Amino acid sequence: MQFELTKEHLTSLKEAITRSDKAFLTAELEKLHPADIAEILDEVNLHEAKFIFELIEEEKSADVLVELEDDVREGFLKALSSDEIADQLIDNIDSDDAADVIGELPEEIQEKVIAKIEEEDPEQAHDIVDLLTYDEDTAGGLMAKEMVVVNQNWTITNCLREMRKQAEEFDDVYAVYVIDDDHKLLGLLSLSKMLVSPAGAIISDIYDKEVQSVTTDEEAEEVGNIMDKYDLVVLPVVDEDGVLQGRITIDDVVEVIKEEAEKDYQMASGITADVESSDKIWILSKARLPWLLIGLVGGIFGAKVIGIYEEDIHIYPEMAFFIPLIAAMGGNVGVQSSALIVQGLANNTLGMENIFTKLLKEFGVALINGLICSAIILGYNLIFGDSLALSITVSVALLSVIIIAGLFGTLVPLLLDRYKIDAALATGPFITTLNDILGLVVYFMIGRYMYLSF
Amino acid sequence: MQFELTKEHLTSLKEAITRSDKAFLTAELEKLHPADIAEILDEVNLHEAKFIFELIEEEKSADVLVELEDDVREGFLKALSSDEIADQLIDNIDSDDAADVIGELPEEIQEKVIAKIEEEDPEQAHDIVDLLTYDEDTAGGLMAKEMVVVNQNWTITNCLREMRKQAEEFDDVYAVYVIDDDHKLLGLLSLSKMLVSPAGAIISDIYDKEVQSVTTDEEAEEVGNIMDKYDLVVLPVVDEDGVLQGRITIDDVVEVIKEEAEKDYQMASGITADVESSDKIWILSKARLPWLLIGLVGGIFGAKVIGIYEEDIHIYPEMAFFIPLIAAMGGNVGVQSSALIVQGLANNTLGMENIFTKLLKEFGVALINGLICSAIILGYNLIFGDSLALSITVSVALLSVIIIAGLFGTLVPLLLDRYKIDAALATGPFITTLNDILGLVVYFMIGRYMYLSF
Repeated sequence: MQFELTKEHLTSLKEAITRSDKAFLTAELEKLHPADIAEILDEVNLHEAKFIFELIEEEKSADVLVELEDDVREGFLKALSSDEIADQLIDNIDSDDAADVIGELPEEIQEKVIAKIEEEDPEQAHDIVDLLTYDEDTAGGLMAKEMVVVNQNWTITNCLREMRKQAEEFDDVYAVYVIDDDHKLLGLLSLSKMLVSPAGAIISDIYDKEVQSVTTDEEAEEVGNIMDKYDLVVLPVVDEDGVLQGRITIDDVVEVIKEEAEKDYQMASGITADVESSDKIWILSKARLPWLLIGLVGGIFGAKVIGIYEEDIHIYPEMAFFIPLIAAMGGNVGVQSSALIVQGLANNTLGMENIFTKLLKEFGVALINGLICSAIILGYNLIFGDSLALSITVSVALLSVIIIAGLFGTLVPLLLDRYKIDAALATGPFITTLNDILGLVVYFMIGRYMYLSF
Repeated sequence: MQFELTKEHLTSLKEAITRSDKAFLTAELEKLHPADIAEILDEVNLHEAKFIFELIEEEKSADVLVELEDDVREGFLKALSSDEIADQLIDNIDSDDAADVIGELPEEIQEKVIAKIEEEDPEQAHDIVDLLTYDEDTAGGLMAKEMVVVNQNWTITNCLREMRKQAEEFDDVYAVYVIDDDHKLLGLLSLSKMLVSPAGAIISDIYDKEVQSVTTDEEAEEVGNIMDKYDLVVLPVVDEDGVLQGRITIDDVVEVIKEEAEKDYQMASGITADVESSDKIWILSKARLPWLLIGLVGGIFGAKVIGIYEEDIHIYPEMAFFIPLIAAMGGNVGVQSSALIVQGLANNTLGMENIFTKLLKEFGVALINGLICSAIILGYNLIFGDSLALSITVSVALLSVIIIAGLFGTLVPLLLDRYKIDAALATGPFITTLNDILGLVVYFMIGRYMYLSF
């Protein structure tokens, strides 16, 4: 069912462009969804993309523009005149998508495009200007202006007449909003209620007063949480006085929810910017270098720590054998526990436990896993004939490191969150590096004590 | 706007339970959304939860049941008789949620509950039995049976009459599906088209023939991708003959999309099962132990590798200083590159590049970052007076390790994916451990060569 762009398909399209076979391309494009066409444009060069774009039927082309990848769209918009851009954005797409596209343009082009839209459709221009005032990471930045709105004093008959008028402007009706004379949001009118009520019924008698809404300045992430938690498909947005401003549909929020989850994933993997494997080499290098530098500094500190014990290593070189094991295990445990906290914070599933209870619990988990791992490595070392001092050192150090790393991995993200810093910072290379060093200190301290004792 | 359960609120509710203050509790519950009540029930003990549950108004209680966390619901359902469960599930919730709840029950209870529902509402029972036959990770397992369906031969007037009848049964109308006499899905009837067309218009003349659908056996993950890509709020499900079977709303798919993103995150963090920080200690330990054991085995191999060079360390103990740095950097680079591939696979953003191009690109990224990091550490070592042999060893080894780890981190997930194994397996402790060992081998090989040369 789903379209999947194959290399063969792409080659045949490119060949058609080379021989300027407009008939073939037009037929191909008619079959495809705007999102699929955008996928093709993302893969060809700008010249080819422009050739294809001009062949797309008018109602589809604006949607294609919206679906393009940011960098491709940027190149594309540069090649279009402000009048051409305005033509795309009038009538064909929702106000939120139009505002997003215009928001990406340089300021002087923005003004020209809006002026042109204003000539043809003043209302649309007004909506776009309004939407552009909101931060893109807020409910205002996510909402669209297209919605069906009815007054509480109307009858069903009034309502249907008005809806008929409004319906000509847009296809999808997700909800009918009921407002008072001051445009304040009162509630929802369900389609089923409307269908089963007599034509003369007054809206105020039949509408549903229980309605969730957010204010325009609500954070996008929070909008995602609310829609997810309450299983909402559409959510109305009001200003601070409760006046209805727009509505957010969940398909726009899915992006936010996904990006949020991915951001944490990238942080945990030591990637600092929102990059994709198809980005340019230099962009990828830049996104990955910061964490590597932190790792490097951590490694230098690690070298310093071991340097303190150079004499011990000279006498007992076998101490060096288990450096990677201790460091790696500390890192692994730390990442595990911090990842659980970060995920809990993101999903609001940390529950009611306070920091102390969380630490106590983590201590329990670390103790169980630490004892199991230490016992295994003790058995291994004793069987394969390492010295008793080394065997005990490794096991005691491993247990200590697992417990310390677990507590650390739990505490750091919780503290960051308490001070309103993104807890995801505490995952990945950061916690690994910190625990590496901690682990080394513990290992060599215990080692020196053990070798002195035996 | 969003309800947030505070400790004070919880305490006041618990106290009300202790003094059996039903009036207070009922008033509180009336104010709350089912999802919020479920949040409360997740936090109290079973006895308290049952006390609260019995006070919830009837239309809400089934929704509360659906929103509970799995383990809480399990305990809860055990405490209810099959008749009580059936009562909850009749009329009040959609067929997909009812099927999900029943699917969790032991088989003999399932039969009793379905038999009881059959007495009261044979159609609902039939829908549930049908839904239970689908795997929960497929479109069939996600879909609900409640939808508005009209025949292409009807007029708008017929249509409205039929919709009125159907509308009594459910609140939300997301789409009106058009079918032929064999119940095959033909397309969609938009509400706006219906509003602006004359009452005598025939549906077949006005419906929208372009409709996306999936078959019942489509994978849940793919359903999520399709709805996300095409910005769909609702998606019809058909059987292999094209007969309409149900519809999936995006709120059900958001869970799937989130879980998918989180699964990769947990894998990368070395957590093998879907756990939350509020789970029991033993469950958390079990989910974390497997990766720690892999790390342990890796550490033992690391010890073996270093063991080979015991004599070298005895003579040049400073070789040990940079063991953690080399191991950690290899691990970090490996995680970065594998995470990018895993994310690209999940989002279909890998683009058209083949494996060779990907590796070449990763080589470029690794070369840039490797040269920068090696230069920094070379400068550090020369300034702070480590021997020339050690300084060169560390830098050459670091560059080699970063390149090898990068290529490895790119190649392994791509290969796993080619052989239909979850590429996310290649992230986290797995790739870290592998690169740790590789790094050590490279480091000591280069080290021995350098010390022999100088």
